[in-house]
Parts: sequence; structure tokens; C-alpha cells
Amino acid sequence: MPKTSDHFAAAELARLCAAKGLRHAVISPGSRSAPLVIAFNAQEGIQCLQVIDERSAAFFALGMAQQLHAPVVLICTSGSAVLNYGPAIAEAFYQRVPLLVITADRPEEWVDQGEGQAIRQQGVLALHMKRSVQLPRNANDDLSRWHCGRLINEAIDATLLPVPGPVHVNVPFAEPLYGTSEAIGGTRFIAPVMTESFILPEHARWLTGQLSASKKVMVLAGQGIWSDGMRKQLVQLASLPQVTVMTEATSNLDDATFITTIDRTIEGITDDNETDLKPDLLITFGGAIVSKRIKGLLRNWKPAQHWNVDLGQRHYDTYQSLTHDIAVSPEVFFAQLSGSVIASESIYRDAWRMVDERIAKAHERILVEAPFCDLVVFEQLLQRIPANSDVHLANSTPARYAQLFQRTRGQRWFSNRGTSGIDGCTSTAVGATFATEKATTLITGDTAFLYDSNAFWNEHLSPHLRIIVIDNGGGNIFRYIDGPDKNAELLPWFEAPHGRDPMALARSFDLPCYEVKDMASLKAGLEQLYNAHEKPAVLVVRTDAEVSPKVLREYFKKLKA
Amino acid sequence: MPKTSDHFAAAELARLCAAKGLRHAVISPGSRSAPLVIAFNAQEGIQCLQVIDERSAAFFALGMAQQLHAPVVLICTSGSAVLNYGPAIAEAFYQRVPLLVITADRPEEWVDQGEGQAIRQQGVLALHMKRSVQLPRNANDDLSRWHCGRLINEAIDATLLPVPGPVHVNVPFAEPLYGTSEAIGGTRFIAPVMTESFILPEHARWLTGQLSASKKVMVLAGQGIWSDGMRKQLVQLASLPQVTVMTEATSNLDDATFITTIDRTIEGITDDNETDLKPDLLITFGGAIVSKRIKGLLRNWKPAQHWNVDLGQRHYDTYQSLTHDIAVSPEVFFAQLSGSVIASESIYRDAWRMVDERIAKAHERILVEAPFCDLVVFEQLLQRIPANSDVHLANSTPARYAQLFQRTRGQRWFSNRGTSGIDGCTSTAVGATFATEKATTLITGDTAFLYDSNAFWNEHLSPHLRIIVIDNGGGNIFRYIDGPDKNAELLPWFEAPHGRDPMALARSFDLPCYEVKDMASLKAGLEQLYNAHEKPAVLVVRTDAEVSPKVLREYFKKLKA
Repeated sequence: MPKTSDHFAAAELARLCAAKGLRHAVISPGSRSAPLVIAFNAQEGIQCLQVIDERSAAFFALGMAQQLHAPVVLICTSGSAVLNYGPAIAEAFYQRVPLLVITADRPEEWVDQGEGQAIRQQGVLALHMKRSVQLPRNANDDLSRWHCGRLINEAIDATLLPVPGPVHVNVPFAEPLYGTSEAIGGTRFIAPVMTESFILPEHARWLTGQLSASKKVMVLAGQGIWSDGMRKQLVQLASLPQVTVMTEATSNLDDATFITTIDRTIEGITDDNETDLKPDLLITFGGAIVSKRIKGLLRNWKPAQHWNVDLGQRHYDTYQSLTHDIAVSPEVFFAQLSGSVIASESIYRDAWRMVDERIAKAHERILVEAPFCDLVVFEQLLQRIPANSDVHLANSTPARYAQLFQRTRGQRWFSNRGTSGIDGCTSTAVGATFATEKATTLITGDTAFLYDSNAFWNEHLSPHLRIIVIDNGGGNIFRYIDGPDKNAELLPWFEAPHGRDPMALARSFDLPCYEVKDMASLKAGLEQLYNAHEKPAVLVVRTDAEVSPKVLREYFKKLKA
Repeated sequence: MPKTSDHFAAAELARLCAAKGLRHAVISPGSRSAPLVIAFNAQEGIQCLQVIDERSAAFFALGMAQQLHAPVVLICTSGSAVLNYGPAIAEAFYQRVPLLVITADRPEEWVDQGEGQAIRQQGVLALHMKRSVQLPRNANDDLSRWHCGRLINEAIDATLLPVPGPVHVNVPFAEPLYGTSEAIGGTRFIAPVMTESFILPEHARWLTGQLSASKKVMVLAGQGIWSDGMRKQLVQLASLPQVTVMTEATSNLDDATFITTIDRTIEGITDDNETDLKPDLLITFGGAIVSKRIKGLLRNWKPAQHWNVDLGQRHYDTYQSLTHDIAVSPEVFFAQLSGSVIASESIYRDAWRMVDERIAKAHERILVEAPFCDLVVFEQLLQRIPANSDVHLANSTPARYAQLFQRTRGQRWFSNRGTSGIDGCTSTAVGATFATEKATTLITGDTAFLYDSNAFWNEHLSPHLRIIVIDNGGGNIFRYIDGPDKNAELLPWFEAPHGRDPMALARSFDLPCYEVKDMASLKAGLEQLYNAHEKPAVLVVRTDAEVSPKVLREYFKKLKA
């Protein structure tokens, strides 16, 4: 038997994680966590990865888990280390990414007793955890060993069922911390038997009937990664005259018959066609919707029926119109229903397509004439980013710009839209690329890139990662939101004029980096960027802080014209 | 009347903060927080400072408030921004630094409804807040305006009374966010009338009697900044034969009659003198104690009486010996008692002094012979850091080394010993120096320095700040703790071998920086460092990762010899 930690809880955590198929532990250095470090390093089947800054480590793990569709273990020491996980945990909670967060603790008896690195760790992140458990410090009899094992089984399973998310396991350890012993084997493995929910036949019949009878059905896809089978079901639905399917980049559901550029297409709504475009029945599924405009529009329109399809019973009433909460997975929902829906007499699909085509043409015309600016840069990027590669969109300008372009080249799109924070976009992409070993591009802004400045502080940087930093001098997304422009003297407080060069940050990590500032150098820079590199390569694109928001405002005005 | 935000809660927060004497607001950029940005910028008497990374911003504010002994306002937008405050909040909670944490929020009705940047903010950091309040979104009638004003008064006062700490004010705002209006004046100012607690005379007499009768009284001072009057009371106490006063750097109480180098002095305890050195009565006060050795020793010794003096009724039983919880401020306690204590027949004071002097001589001998290493570097630093300046000690190696040297040059010593995290040591020093405009030196390690890499990402860097980074290749403090050295292959998991150069980080911010690696260059480097600079200057001292822990182990062995 191999040597592991002589702390039962640590050894058992490592053993059961491996038994349940977890393969990676992202560990930040520390002392109290020594039993976990020993146990996970001794555990066959688990790869340990070191990331020093816990804030970055948690986003790194999130990026991995997002790609692997499997829980990744996070391990840190006691004290404020745990709190640095906070931002990524909230993101994982809302984005539904499975993380098993194992935090070493002092014995709970010592909390608030003047011990160093002892804080109130039990449940400290519970508001954004699916579950928070406290393991026993001394599992020295059968009852407490049973308790410890049962809690570990439960915690690991809770990262995935019924929907994925973060789970907190807090483990107090008393000194000595560094002892090892033969693995004592341990508690039972409790197997989670996989289940699937279906809609009861009589309800399914009613739903199909509604879909077949309705004249105006809008399907709006939130964030997610879906099976090709489901995409085909949606294509089938979208072939019906009464159905329009709307998707965003992060929906990862593109088809020529869908409306895939919501933010620009809805600019084509006029007093004349609004009645034709309003849905009677709205069907939503998946995670976050990026478009603020579609949210505002649907809240105004208030469709007569809104079905939200979500296994986790999230009960989102985003459009203040929810009438049916359908607690099955979207995959099941469309598989069960879409084949049985029959065409109704309707112009709904075609009304939306007409608008979409008209706006698409206007978009082309405007882009041809536009000067070098963020919008034009995005057009170039989306043409040049390798086909079938992965793209991560940082918050929030890149995530918004990406909605304005058609996506036709088979990329998968990711973004931290659970909480829409800028705090870990780079670390997430670094972790994701480590997991996939696949060509990946992060499109980010100067502020988000500089914020997550420890993202490259680890030994797990993939040469497949490319980072494009659009440096417009600090988040001028605010300049095209109504309001901030009216308080010009306060603009610096909404933006982030940082006086710091993204190139200097890239250089401080010895990353290959390039800098461009006009169309010719952008094209050349993109070629350099996508050459082979041994490390993640960075392209900084300088755009004018005044021109870009101005062009965007004009863009939306001209679309309408 | 000047224009302020048309959101009542925002305007009222700014007005009451100013009325209660708050002078600084540290603001991170964002959109939802616009009403707060407008109101605080419009508020006479309050200076607004921008720090982009919320994790760094909160430590920056903590550094300011620690120096000003007054609450500093923190303002951020909704979402994960708030969670980035977590580490500094826990530090402020345990270090008792007053912070008014104002977080903008979406209307609470939209939480968990698919809105971007909406998380469960209400009370999200409550475990380490003295209080968490939620302001009403619509203060549109007298009752809700009264409620809003009362909560704000209460929250601001709670940052200081009865003991300082962080308080959370969560403020939901509905759009539009950017509107302004004349200040509508508002609710009542509720004045906190200052009070002071004294020990009841009959209890004070009993305590004085105990002190006068006891043969062996140890006074152990935790972290804090105290009045000169109190220091004199302690000197008076220390003149009694039955009293020994022990202080650490961060106690900021030094006197030739105190034991000020606990960690080295207690190495002089032997089987022969242990009985003479054990206290019968232990008196403790103040914040954290750095020395793990004194904690372990006192837990073993278990004095017959342990009085903890703390106005906040912290009820710390750090030594598992607590017999009296004395809920007055230490200032009051010593003022009330120390003049009345009479000398008892005792060798206690002199027994400790003998040990202290013997060990001091051994210390000198060892240092003379030691090769260039962390210990020797510290000796040099403590001689060269300007007299009467401020010194910040990062966690955890610098905070520990500083305990081994006598401090005779009038510096004040600070360290984030509330949670002993490495996450914000630099940002704290940056904020503190901004507040004091006083010569300040941060002594830090390579890992802590690299971790808090956004500390210089603001426009408020004082030219009075100097940073000394002892680069020993990643936290080899673990090499002299028993245990990790027995698992050599696991060492990288306890330390943080980072493959990253502190010089590159300093250069990326255009900070003047110098690099030294032996005694001669160290002396020259220190001269350069303390020359005038326009920005914080950085000195990186390279020490050998093998030599330093070896010397330290030998040091403790030789002290005993």
C-alpha cells in the first residue's frame, strides 16, 4: 500500500476523488494544507497543478472544469487564502461549473482565539456554494469515519447533480501536519446512479399542442455547450413558419436559419413591424444572456407565455413573463417535443429573417466605411481566428462586440457570464487551454487583462493560447451607455484609465508579444500571433478611446436608418 | 445647493460620511456604482481615490484607515467586485481597522433572475463584518427615508464603536443611474457620544492586590499602537521586581526594561531556570501575537491566572488559561492600576533579564560569524531603515525575522497579522504611505511581493515608500519548520517556487529598482534605495534558498548552547 497522509480526512478525500473520476487538483502553496498536499500527491490517477495566487487558481480550475465537464479539485491553506476563491466561486455557481473546493483549516476550537491564519471558514462562501460541509478533525472511531466518508461522497456528487456547481469541503487539521502512513483504505464508495427526467406524456402533448397552435414562437438560447443532436432538433423547429430561434456567441448554437446576431438584428424593429416580431410564446434555456437589449425588449413585450427549461429549477423570470417552469434538461425537452410540432400558418419566421437580412446588409455597408476602431478590429479578428478553435471573450466589451458578427467558422465561445466579472478572464482561458490543449484565443480588454495580472504566474501555460488585448485606454464601453457621457468630468470613475501598458505586463512574464495600431499592422500582427510559439502569445491592438465609442453609436444609428 | 446623485441613499451616504468626519473614499470603477461615484465626488470634505483592482483597493483602504485611526470608505460596483474585498475585510476584522464598505447592487428583486453582475450580495461578507446593512432602494416616503438615514448613521458609527472594524452597506440602485439633483438635505445626524469604561473600584482594588502579591507577573503585549502615557505606565510596572513585560515589533512598545525579542530570548529557557521564568499571572492585551513559540510555551505552562484586557470582549483564550476577561481598553487598565501596584519580593524580572542578556550576547556572536543570508540581511536593514520612520512587515518570513532583533530607533511597526495573509501586504503599505506621507519601508518576501502584483496599479503612489524584497526563491520559511524538510519531494508544494523575477514586476510599473546579492552590494543598494525618488523605490535582495534556512536552524541551536 502506498504512503499517504496520516490524517484520515485528507487521505480519504484523495482516495474518493480518484474513485469518482476526478483527475486534477489545483493547489496553492501553504502549510496547514500539508495533509492534503501529501494525500493528493500520493494519489494515483490525480494530477496536481500548482497555481500560487488563489484568486487566479480558482479561475484556472474553473477554466479546466468548464472544458472537462468534470469537477476539478481546488486546495488551499487556511485563512484569507480561502476568501481569494470568492470571485471564481460565484462565477462557477452561476455558470454552473463543477468545482470541489477543499480548504484546510485550523481546528475549529482555535477560531477567534488569536491564532494566526484562522478565520471563520466554515460556510464562509456558502451563499455561492451548492453545499458547504465541515469534515471531522479527528476521525478516530467508526462513527466519525463513517460520517467523514459519507460527507465526502455527498460533496463530490453534489458538484455535478442535479446541475454542476461549486461545493465547499472545509477540513480542520491539528499538528503535526506532515505525517504519513500506509493508506488505511477506508469508507464505502457511494455510487451516484445517473438519472434523467422526462416530461410526462400528457404534459408533453399539451406543450406540443401549444407550439403547433402558436403563431409566434421565439426560442432564445442562453449560454451553454450542447450536443449536435440538440442543435439539429432546433434546426428542425426553426424550419417551422411560426418559430424563430435566437442565439448568441456563448449559446454555441449557430445555424443559417437562426438569428445569431441579436444585438444588431433587433435594431431593425420599427413601429411597422413590431407586432409581427413580438412572440406569443417565448422558450428560454441555458445560462446567461449577454444582450441587454433583448432583455429590455422582452420585458416590454411581455409574451403571453414564457416557458423556461431548466433541470435545476432555476426559476429565472428574467422577462417578468414566466408562465411555465419546465424542470428537464433542454436536451430532453427538444428531443421530446420538436419532432411532433406541426407547422402553423404564420409569417413569424420570415418576418424576423427579413429584418435580419436587411440589417445584415446595413452592417456590411457600415463596416466598409468605418475607420480603424474596436468594431473594425472585431471584424478582422473573427475572420482570422482559426476555424474550429476555442474563443474566450472577456468582460465586458469583447463579449458585447462579438454579438454583432455572424459566426460561421465552427468556433466554440466561452465567457465568464455567470457574474460577468473582469477579475479572472485570463486565468480562466489559461486553465481552459491547459485542459483542452487546443488552439484557443482570448479576446480581452486592457482593463481585464491588467486586472488578472497573475494569470500567467504558473507553470501550466499552454503554447496553444493566444491573447488579443484591445487597448482602448480603459473600458470605454461606458461611453456608449447613456448617462456617463453626460458627466464628462466623472468619466474616469466609470472607466479605468490605468496608465499601464499591457505590453509591459506581457514582457514581465517573457511572453512573446506584438503591438499594432492600424489595419495593416493588425493583419501582419495576427499572422505573427498565430505562428507557432512556445508560450502564450499576446497581441495588443491599440484603438482610439474617442473613435471607437463614436463609431459604435453611429453604427447603431445607421442600422436603424 | 450643489448637485449630487438623485438616488437618496447615495446622496445621504456621502452627506452623513462627511458629517461624521470621514475624509476618504477609495473607489473602484464600475457602472452600477454611478450614484455613489456622483454623490461622493460632489461631497465637500471627502477626497475620492481610484484603485482599480478591488482586492488591492480594499487593502489600500485598510492601510489608510490603520494610519488615520478613522474609517475609510470603500466603494465598488455590483457582482464579483464585492467578493474581491473579502481578504482585506477579514484582515480588517481581526486587526480591527475601521472600513465602511459600500457596495452598489442591482435591485434585490433581480438577484438570481439571470441579470448580469447580480450575485447574492446581501450579507455576503457578514462573517467578517461587524455589521451588514441593506439600504432601501426607493426611499420615497418619510418612513423609508428615516430608515435609510438611521441605518447609515448606525453603520458609520459601528466602524468605530465599541472597537473598530469593517461594516458593510449594500445599496441597491435601479436605472437610471446617472441622474443628478440638488441635495435634498435629509435625515438627522445622530451623534455618537464617546464613552469610556473603567474597572469598578472594588474590582480594581482586588486586581491591584493580586498584582502586588504575585511573585511572577508576565505582561504580554499584542499588536497595536498605544499612547506614550501607556508606555510609561508599563515602564513603571516593569520596574517592579515581580513583573516582566514582553513585547513584539508590532506591539509598538519598546523600552530597555522590556523583553522585546521574545522569539530569541525564550531559547534561553533551560530545565534549571524554567521554574523561575514561568508566570503565575499572565496579562495580555492588544491584537495578534506573532511568536508561535511563546504561544506554545504558555499553553504548556498554563499560568494560574490569565487576565485578558480587551474592550471588545474578544474573549481570547489563546493560552488555554484565561481566568479573567477584563472589558476595558488597555489604556484605561494600566492607567487605573499600574500606579497602585507595590513591589513584592521576587526575582522574576531579573531572572528574565539575565536570560535576555545572555541570549543577546549569543545573538551578537552568531551574527558576526554568519554568512550572507536572510538573518544577516535583516540585521543590516534594521540598522539602516531611517529612525522614527514606519516599517511594514509582510507575511510571514519578514514578520518572524523582525522578532529576533532589538529595536532601538523609534520606528513604528505594522503587519497584517489579523489573518497573516500574504495577499495584500504591498497594497496596505501603499495605502498607509499615501495617508501618512511619511518615510515608510515595506520589508517583504518574493512570494508576497509577486502575489500582490496590482498594488502599484493606482495614481496614489507615495515617493516616501521604499520596498525591500528579500528574494529567497519562494517562502523558504517552511524549511525551518519541522516536517516539510522530511518530504523533500513535496517542498515545492509548501513553498512557492515561482520562476518570476520581482525586478520584472517593479520594472513593469517603471519603479526605480535595484538588485543586490552580497553584503557590499546590499550596503550600497540601501544607500541608493533611500536616496530621493519620485516613485516608490524597490530593492531586491537575493539570498540563497539553501543557506538562509540552514543559518536560521543553526542560529537557534547556538542560542541554546
